Amino acid sequence: MGPIMRKSLLLAASLAVLALSAAPVLSQQTATTQADMEKTFDTFISSAEMDGWMKKMAAEPNHVGSPHDKANAEDTLARFKAWGWDAHIEEFQVLYPTPLKVQLDLVSPKKFSATLTEKPVPGDATSSRTKAQLPAYVAFQGDGDVTAPIVYVNYGMPDDYKALERMGVDVKGKIVIARYGQGWRGLKPKLAQDHGAVGCIIFSDPRDDGYSVDDAYPKGASRPAQGFQRGSVADMPLYPGDPLTPGYGATKDAPRLKREEAQTLLKIPVLPISYGDAEKFLGAMEGNVVPPNWRGGMPITYHVGGTDAAKAHLVVKSEWSLKTAYNVVAKMEGSQYPDQWVMRGNHHDGWVFGASDPISGHIAMMAEAKAIGELAKTGWRPKRTLVYLSWDAEEPMLLGSTEWVETHAAELKQKGLIYINTDGNGRGFLGVDGNHAFQNFVGKVSADVTDPQTGVSVGQRQRAGAMVVGATPGASERSKAVAKAAADGKDIPLDPLGSGSDYSSFVQHLGVAAMNVGYGGEGDSGGVYHSAYDTYEHHSKFVDPGFAYAAVLAKTTGRMVLRISETDLPVQRYGDFADTVSTYLDEVKTLATNKREAQVAQAKIIAADGFRLSDDPKQTSGPPTPLKVVPFFNFAPLDNALVRLKASAATYDKTLAAKGAGLSADVKGKLVALAGKTEQAMTVEPGLPGGRGWYKNMIYAPGRFTGYGAKTLPGVREAIEDERWNDAETYVGLTAKAINAYADSLDQGVALMGGPSK
Amino acid sequence: MGPIMRKSLLLAASLAVLALSAAPVLSQQTATTQADMEKTFDTFISSAEMDGWMKKMAAEPNHVGSPHDKANAEDTLARFKAWGWDAHIEEFQVLYPTPLKVQLDLVSPKKFSATLTEKPVPGDATSSRTKAQLPAYVAFQGDGDVTAPIVYVNYGMPDDYKALERMGVDVKGKIVIARYGQGWRGLKPKLAQDHGAVGCIIFSDPRDDGYSVDDAYPKGASRPAQGFQRGSVADMPLYPGDPLTPGYGATKDAPRLKREEAQTLLKIPVLPISYGDAEKFLGAMEGNVVPPNWRGGMPITYHVGGTDAAKAHLVVKSEWSLKTAYNVVAKMEGSQYPDQWVMRGNHHDGWVFGASDPISGHIAMMAEAKAIGELAKTGWRPKRTLVYLSWDAEEPMLLGSTEWVETHAAELKQKGLIYINTDGNGRGFLGVDGNHAFQNFVGKVSADVTDPQTGVSVGQRQRAGAMVVGATPGASERSKAVAKAAADGKDIPLDPLGSGSDYSSFVQHLGVAAMNVGYGGEGDSGGVYHSAYDTYEHHSKFVDPGFAYAAVLAKTTGRMVLRISETDLPVQRYGDFADTVSTYLDEVKTLATNKREAQVAQAKIIAADGFRLSDDPKQTSGPPTPLKVVPFFNFAPLDNALVRLKASAATYDKTLAAKGAGLSADVKGKLVALAGKTEQAMTVEPGLPGGRGWYKNMIYAPGRFTGYGAKTLPGVREAIEDERWNDAETYVGLTAKAINAYADSLDQGVALMGGPSK
Repeated sequence: MGPIMRKSLLLAASLAVLALSAAPVLSQQTATTQADMEKTFDTFISSAEMDGWMKKMAAEPNHVGSPHDKANAEDTLARFKAWGWDAHIEEFQVLYPTPLKVQLDLVSPKKFSATLTEKPVPGDATSSRTKAQLPAYVAFQGDGDVTAPIVYVNYGMPDDYKALERMGVDVKGKIVIARYGQGWRGLKPKLAQDHGAVGCIIFSDPRDDGYSVDDAYPKGASRPAQGFQRGSVADMPLYPGDPLTPGYGATKDAPRLKREEAQTLLKIPVLPISYGDAEKFLGAMEGNVVPPNWRGGMPITYHVGGTDAAKAHLVVKSEWSLKTAYNVVAKMEGSQYPDQWVMRGNHHDGWVFGASDPISGHIAMMAEAKAIGELAKTGWRPKRTLVYLSWDAEEPMLLGSTEWVETHAAELKQKGLIYINTDGNGRGFLGVDGNHAFQNFVGKVSADVTDPQTGVSVGQRQRAGAMVVGATPGASERSKAVAKAAADGKDIPLDPLGSGSDYSSFVQHLGVAAMNVGYGGEGDSGGVYHSAYDTYEHHSKFVDPGFAYAAVLAKTTGRMVLRISETDLPVQRYGDFADTVSTYLDEVKTLATNKREAQVAQAKIIAADGFRLSDDPKQTSGPPTPLKVVPFFNFAPLDNALVRLKASAATYDKTLAAKGAGLSADVKGKLVALAGKTEQAMTVEPGLPGGRGWYKNMIYAPGRFTGYGAKTLPGVREAIEDERWNDAETYVGLTAKAINAYADSLDQGVALMGGPSK
Repeated sequence: MGPIMRKSLLLAASLAVLALSAAPVLSQQTATTQADMEKTFDTFISSAEMDGWMKKMAAEPNHVGSPHDKANAEDTLARFKAWGWDAHIEEFQVLYPTPLKVQLDLVSPKKFSATLTEKPVPGDATSSRTKAQLPAYVAFQGDGDVTAPIVYVNYGMPDDYKALERMGVDVKGKIVIARYGQGWRGLKPKLAQDHGAVGCIIFSDPRDDGYSVDDAYPKGASRPAQGFQRGSVADMPLYPGDPLTPGYGATKDAPRLKREEAQTLLKIPVLPISYGDAEKFLGAMEGNVVPPNWRGGMPITYHVGGTDAAKAHLVVKSEWSLKTAYNVVAKMEGSQYPDQWVMRGNHHDGWVFGASDPISGHIAMMAEAKAIGELAKTGWRPKRTLVYLSWDAEEPMLLGSTEWVETHAAELKQKGLIYINTDGNGRGFLGVDGNHAFQNFVGKVSADVTDPQTGVSVGQRQRAGAMVVGATPGASERSKAVAKAAADGKDIPLDPLGSGSDYSSFVQHLGVAAMNVGYGGEGDSGGVYHSAYDTYEHHSKFVDPGFAYAAVLAKTTGRMVLRISETDLPVQRYGDFADTVSTYLDEVKTLATNKREAQVAQAKIIAADGFRLSDDPKQTSGPPTPLKVVPFFNFAPLDNALVRLKASAATYDKTLAAKGAGLSADVKGKLVALAGKTEQAMTVEPGLPGGRGWYKNMIYAPGRFTGYGAKTLPGVREAIEDERWNDAETYVGLTAKAINAYADSLDQGVALMGGPSK
């Protein structure tokens, strides 16, 4: 799904940079060897070759079930084998509906039928290959044929429904029309359904990724008038993967839920449309003029609608058979620690041609695999086992990776050290989300890769970007903190992992450490995201001309893989994790305080009849629903766990720095294996509440109401946000349990090293 | 010019509300009499009558020099006389250019001629009276005939030119095209001229007051595609009024500068255009795609231009003769204190029909004058002299009021207690800008006028609005502070007076206290501001249906006039002024600190080559100009003056509360007269630096680079902003001198009362 590519400079700048203070993880001898090997590795990375791979892989539509998607898997398999890898295709049988009929008409005040197809654009030969394309649709919406008045719901997020309520507009029995953005796609129809809507239309507003941002493709990179965004609307916050096999692999003979039993399937029909079509619908609506933050970029006045003035007819019928997902699994066995796995993956399925998303990341992974194969030809072998993974069926909702992880869960928990993910790539700044024990490690890698546009390291460029962003008027507190870290020579925080790509089941279901890596912030593929215009032509002209950053990505993730594969000692620095979790706890406490103060402030206004008195009687129907009184929470278990974690982390880091190099090979190997397990301490049964037990990580999760966006300390944070006070209490305990288990594991490591130094 | 009507709820909510703690200014006896009189006064206010007056006054174009403008003055004169006032017309001969030829063409890449006229809209009979209308123009721009490439400069403010520089775009020899907003109109061509541009086009972007905001007129209140905003571009920050007679009255025989000598006349040609026309020009431009905060609401990608791709031909030729301005001056002599004047004004000239701006305020003033006349018919006489002023030639740059004030400066400084201004009116919340010694007085008035939409006092409604705005997520620190004041039952700060209406010469040139009063924040006339669609039809449908708020305004300003006219003791509370100036000094110190820190942060980035390294090489031409090192300033003279002011104010307020009622009638009268003089202590020679010596008030001024927007402690604040370190030092001294003189005057008052109480 490639969200990392869409990160702005602001986000990109908040990522890790060159670390100046570091534990001496590699001995001088090892470091020299490693540096030489990386230098050799780099010589095998070829932008021209990646260009050719993309041209071929993105030549035809490659969605799940398409012939070209299967061909790409087979081609990837053949290449991995030719490069010396032990590779095979592992198949899963997954539910994946494809559209049989999609139709959307404006039926009043005048007739208009939405186009729902993306016509070719001049100068882009790929876009003319329309035959195998699927029309406008989203995956896992309901079948239906409905006619109803339409209501504009802005981004369709919870606050938007509160605003609608104050305007006296109800979506019950109506079709909502929401714009893309500000929250994950799938939440829009889910919330619409929860509020009683019978259908949902999602459009791409030109203000968000169309002509307001840049010239429309093909003149510029932005979304053209007939481009729309496909995607999945499965209820990912419950669980990703095959809707019919929650928590276990969708192998051929696995038991399956009936379709009606699957909790992640939406019931109402949903279609994505272009702004070319959307203007006809929004332009026909009446009712209240929208509030300022609901305005978009079309040359019309946006109205809320909901009246009988504008009605739409929406039809979706899908073909619901199981389809085969083809994961390519390639291994190179470790010479010293074959049961310690370093994993690396990128998906190969796209929504149409998928040049930027996902092929631009896939070709970097291929370049690494080829280069590692070349190293292997010289007789070299990795110390640990490398597992390269070309996933299928990521787009519908991480089906390929989730089913594979669920199938191999026990082995992965035993052997997995880390999973390094990419999902497309762009131009600009390195962005890394991941487990914070790896923050220092990422900083070191970023110091050793050269940025092609400036000639300095990608870490130094990140640092420069962070300083500039933090000094910009109006910069957020977070940006200012990141800028200060950059200026002070400290590591800059990694961002936490949310969802939207194949790392999810590793880190959030099993607890195996993960990272998501990509370059972005300059140029952008946002305007063609999940459309038929995400082509080789678009990518090579606007996103990564000359495939310069494809090479940089391969060098970055290649180094990550090879350093963890070859290290003698753990690359983690646990003080970073402890400090980060500490800031998360501060945030949660502030959240509770702010929410409490907001309730008190609102109660004062209500007592003074302030809403009625200040409201424009021509605009508003009544005061807002009173907020719930927010109790004080017992955060002591978390406070105590953090004190312990900080102490254990400090002891571990100090002891490793002092004693690490002198340890026996056996102990070193055990320490690295233990470090793989330590991260898994974050997972606690029964996982998150509210039917979200698949998510077991108490530190990192995608948000129930943010979708891809991460929520840290999710059990506690979301309980407070959603006003589930009992859950807050319960999850303070469960989260403290996870943190204590993590500290236990660190203490075990210190014991392995023969006790604390000094 | 009516800026107060355009205040959002956010601004409106920051104004004074019901004061709960107050010095007992009126004795019980007087209060009862006063309340009875006000009740009687209210019975003479008729919405229906005001409706009729507007219909007549706004029936034909009424710009300076038009027959209908003169007829309105004569009609107003006749009415005042009929209502029992001693009225006359006082004429001035002012420079006021009117367009002989205006022309704007796109000459490449294709030909297009801007319409520059506002065609009638259906359902608005007034808009069809196009005969006497002037075409698109702004007042006091230069004559010229230029052809050049066009450059889009966003809002055309100083920061925009810095951004252009970083993009490598120069406006020298080019025609700039700027959108209205974010800074006063006249600054746009002035800054363009200063940067070497040969012409300037200003357009109304639909995102700011067109279809993005509301349906276009006549369906809704917003600016239609062919509507444009006229206005003055005289260099008002130097001095307002007739450009040829700076500092003295433009009487018939006054000496006059030659046109070439007048500092406030622009040299380059300027035209305002509609978004219907602007889209043709902006759509034709090439060059960089604009940064996000430069995007507007037209359905095109905005480019910076500056290349030869798009060229325009701009012609302006004006007729430069003197025109007659007709001020109506109406007096009702005071029975007890004829030499103490309470002044009240609103202008009568508009840009076209001027229904909202200015007639909607003018009719309220007329209603007051009529009601006072009715009171007078019963034998009642005001204790102090009332002076009602119907100004001409406000729109070109406060010509009528400035020339009158300059002509009568000595008498006004002697007799003037206060000038109360209105300049149009809308629906919603009371908004008052003014001298802060009147904050408590305004709060009391607002507690005694009933809001027609809610039935509570306009003060209580203000308070409710302030609380709601302050509790809104993302509220500014200022809004939060205002909300807290509202919730705590304290007076809410008045906003300081900037410029843009006829109070300017009173408060900023003479130092006579002033207020600007209006209702707004619900519905809006912004979309037809200074256009041919500001008509009776538009105003009565969208701005103030039923003229309910015209009546409320008359009751509000009528009370202000009558309470100051009839009071025994000063209505001022000086602690409010002292506290307010103290917060202004805090702001100025913070400004210096922030500016210093910004320079230090930027220097660090430059030292790290951070701008070059973080810039997108495809977007940016080079690093920004280094900021100047900011020295530390000696604020001690201001700190000391404020300590003194606070002490003197506290003593005065306390003594007045304790002893006031028991003073002799003679002393009471002298105290009120002295209070009129006290405000004048804010003026100090030689006034503001940089050719702005006309502005003599050291506390309140319009900003050099904000135009209408106020700068408080302007001598110091703007010196720091503009990096004139020596001026900062000098004006700390001059401002302290003003504050000390103010404190002297308060001490004199205490002495008059026989020394401090207790």
